[in-house]
Amino acid sequence: MITGKNYVGSTLKAGGNKTFKTFNPQQNVENPWVFTEATHEEIEEAVALAHQAFGTYKKCSGLERAGFLNAIADEIVALGNDLLVQYCSESGFPMGRAEGERGRMVGQLRAFAQMLIEGSWVQAAIDTAITDRVPAPKEDLRKILVPLGPVVVFGSSNFPFAFSTAGGDTASALAAGCPVIVKSHSMHVGTGEMVASAIIKAAQKTNMPEGVFSNLIGGGTTLGTALVKHPLVKAVGFTGSIRAGRALFDLAAQRPEPIPVFAEMGSVNPVVLLPNAVKVNSQKWATAYAGSITLGAGQFCTNPGLLFGIKGAELDKFSEELTQAIEKIEPFCMLHPSMKEGFEEGSATMLAQKGVAKIAEYKGDAASNYGVQKVLTVDGKTFLENKILSHEVFGPVSVLVQCDDEQQLLTIINQLDGQLTGTIIGEPEELKNQDELIAAMQSRVGRLIFNGVPTGVEVCPSMIHGGPYPASSDSRFTAVGIHAVYRWVRPFSYQNWPNELLPAELQNENPLQILRTLNNIQTKSQIA
Amino acid sequence: MITGKNYVGSTLKAGGNKTFKTFNPQQNVENPWVFTEATHEEIEEAVALAHQAFGTYKKCSGLERAGFLNAIADEIVALGNDLLVQYCSESGFPMGRAEGERGRMVGQLRAFAQMLIEGSWVQAAIDTAITDRVPAPKEDLRKILVPLGPVVVFGSSNFPFAFSTAGGDTASALAAGCPVIVKSHSMHVGTGEMVASAIIKAAQKTNMPEGVFSNLIGGGTTLGTALVKHPLVKAVGFTGSIRAGRALFDLAAQRPEPIPVFAEMGSVNPVVLLPNAVKVNSQKWATAYAGSITLGAGQFCTNPGLLFGIKGAELDKFSEELTQAIEKIEPFCMLHPSMKEGFEEGSATMLAQKGVAKIAEYKGDAASNYGVQKVLTVDGKTFLENKILSHEVFGPVSVLVQCDDEQQLLTIINQLDGQLTGTIIGEPEELKNQDELIAAMQSRVGRLIFNGVPTGVEVCPSMIHGGPYPASSDSRFTAVGIHAVYRWVRPFSYQNWPNELLPAELQNENPLQILRTLNNIQTKSQIA
Repeated sequence: MITGKNYVGSTLKAGGNKTFKTFNPQQNVENPWVFTEATHEEIEEAVALAHQAFGTYKKCSGLERAGFLNAIADEIVALGNDLLVQYCSESGFPMGRAEGERGRMVGQLRAFAQMLIEGSWVQAAIDTAITDRVPAPKEDLRKILVPLGPVVVFGSSNFPFAFSTAGGDTASALAAGCPVIVKSHSMHVGTGEMVASAIIKAAQKTNMPEGVFSNLIGGGTTLGTALVKHPLVKAVGFTGSIRAGRALFDLAAQRPEPIPVFAEMGSVNPVVLLPNAVKVNSQKWATAYAGSITLGAGQFCTNPGLLFGIKGAELDKFSEELTQAIEKIEPFCMLHPSMKEGFEEGSATMLAQKGVAKIAEYKGDAASNYGVQKVLTVDGKTFLENKILSHEVFGPVSVLVQCDDEQQLLTIINQLDGQLTGTIIGEPEELKNQDELIAAMQSRVGRLIFNGVPTGVEVCPSMIHGGPYPASSDSRFTAVGIHAVYRWVRPFSYQNWPNELLPAELQNENPLQILRTLNNIQTKSQIA
Repeated sequence: MITGKNYVGSTLKAGGNKTFKTFNPQQNVENPWVFTEATHEEIEEAVALAHQAFGTYKKCSGLERAGFLNAIADEIVALGNDLLVQYCSESGFPMGRAEGERGRMVGQLRAFAQMLIEGSWVQAAIDTAITDRVPAPKEDLRKILVPLGPVVVFGSSNFPFAFSTAGGDTASALAAGCPVIVKSHSMHVGTGEMVASAIIKAAQKTNMPEGVFSNLIGGGTTLGTALVKHPLVKAVGFTGSIRAGRALFDLAAQRPEPIPVFAEMGSVNPVVLLPNAVKVNSQKWATAYAGSITLGAGQFCTNPGLLFGIKGAELDKFSEELTQAIEKIEPFCMLHPSMKEGFEEGSATMLAQKGVAKIAEYKGDAASNYGVQKVLTVDGKTFLENKILSHEVFGPVSVLVQCDDEQQLLTIINQLDGQLTGTIIGEPEELKNQDELIAAMQSRVGRLIFNGVPTGVEVCPSMIHGGPYPASSDSRFTAVGIHAVYRWVRPFSYQNWPNELLPAELQNENPLQILRTLNNIQTKSQIA
């Protein structure tokens, strides 16, 4: 079923001679399939097709695009168990996770389809003419959002479904009216090919233009660099490390025509434990955090990497309970030996820093590629003096930072880099006296959580998955939820345009019955 | 009344020893006032104050910020005729333009105040908890827009009021909750000081924090570079040339923490004359375009620099009528001798290109610093081969490009850089057969006009003043109208946050009675 080839539009191509295989971390063996990297010509052809497709695809109605997205969801589901097996063999994740993440991927596609069917997302705004205004008449102006052009998507390692080939970036870009070229993540490029085949099948069934989607294979940075620098590419979506995300951002900013890059680059997701919560609910939060740290072997961008508390007997008790909980949880398989290696190296570097001690670690046996979770600790002063301790280590490790007092805690929070999330654990009463802490946290994060865990990113309009740099390259957008579509569109005005030649969304009759801003009022009314 | 000093917060400072004067282009003499450039220490202090002010200012309610903006408008009006006289003496613009542009500046400030009073602009979105959902409960999530932090504003040369010290960038950033540091445009820095004094007075009267606004003076690039590179600056607004805008964009992108730059960098605003319009309404459009080309000595970013028609007797007739109209209009004074020089050099370079001829020019006498308008012409083939002919020359000059046929016209449009506006002049019937042309124009511009002129930028929700690069550095935003606020804010989510500690916009009771997205429905309802 896996061909190992690139989808250049709907055509499978493998004209190159560079190949690689994926790895099964559970079985600790290479997978059998051979994947061929895209050649320079294949890359050029995919981009040219996307550019050409854009001319047609941008004119498709919202209903037509919704049909395409729903068809992708249907075709993915139709791949059945084979797809889940492929996913597991290239990620080490268990079947339950595969099923759950497929549900999320399919759900996202359908959510964007629903957004298109409802139609108001285009933020139509109309100001009608005032021909007798003095000193000058007011012209009729009508605004709508239009797609930017071909979008390149770099899938993530840790969500082979929900943030990869047909994940949030692809779904939102296709919803926006942008053709998509995916650089398939090399760790699960077989899974990517299967999902890509579903997208191609859906495009053909719903009469989408050739080139609306391509899926390219590359091992190093050549493919990604060529795509981001290509003049016909108009935007980039990326999920991954700061190093890679920043490199792509820089490439895009240095183009003769700079293009937007939305890079979600992860974070350490600070968690603050307020004294009373530790006093009253120590056991509860220790258990919850042991679970959050180890979930999916800690391979989440919202994994809590830093816990902050105020030194003392109560924090010692929490620390012991966390240790006990951590030691009890069976480790999980990591995505790839290189991930496991990065995790081990990162944890070791952290532990080697002056003043850092290990307080908890799973003690049982663990298969190769399994991430053995640990918790380190350090005092606040040492943390403040060593930037390395606030770096993300991708995997199941957290550092418990024991602060001298609330002032030191505040200084630390104010010094943190941008984060996807921040969490405060406290009794409701004690939160009321934490204005400064709340303000400091708010300035550093995209999502602020009270009495919860940062893992678990709901797909809904009020979710923000993004945040100040380096959590994302542009904090003004989100990667999760239907508002992710706004990364790929620009506002466009028609002035004095004939009604019958306007897009339906802007016509007097409001044929799509969408909510519009008409002379400053939000309404579904027609224009008389 | 003019001190020549920097407003570092509310304090007038001039510790430096570099000075310069402004110029009165109407009288062709230097103005008397001496302006002192900001020192390194003054720059540092202004940014530190802005950073400190942000902590307080971001917590001000919409009503409080609206009070501030309305007070700025009041204080500007209270400066009375003196301000208008200052404006004229530093711009060469006539009194009528001064009054009109003051009206626009004040109107913009009040429009943002009105937006804040109404309150729904924060795009509040709420998804309430579903505690019994399986497999996992849904957390309560509430999203709002929050300000980015201190914003640096680079005022334009050509709008000393509406796009300068208290212009659209400043008004939108203050509305967003961001302190502003203005780099006063050196051509009208005295006007800038007066407007700044009004802002400072308004800030004091409405109890805004010290440092919410600073106004700095600089002659070269030192001040701007220092501001854009400063780690505590979080965004930049700019109106001006491609060269300067791109330099700031590059500086911002190269920072350790990149920040958003919205640079509006002008354009040539292509106008297409369809055959029947030229046949039926030649005289009308020739007159309208002579007026649009010469308005304000052509010193508008929406000035029509390129007119495209299909070769033939009818275009010849239009060309003659345009010539007659152009020759009849009295030239206007330009902003500065350097502007006049740039205009003359740019026009001369254009005219020196192979195949370019001058068809119209004002023949009468013109005072020094007056921009003598001209129209050049070239054929489509030559235009296609010479990129120089599509560069912007700032001033009253247009090039009439005579295309062989519609195919050549289409090729040309597809090859144009990004533009603020595009215009099609045609009879309604002939527009119906122009799908390809319309699509090509749409892909190149931010605003598409039918049977009008591009000059005249209405301030309203459906206006887009921006466009694909290099018209702007990020086509996803507009510089004009209340939606300009969205350049300076980011979405932020509260998860499971206690109701009484949420901002009013997100509380169950909806105390501000704003429109919110509640569980996917737009409503002003409370949450039970």
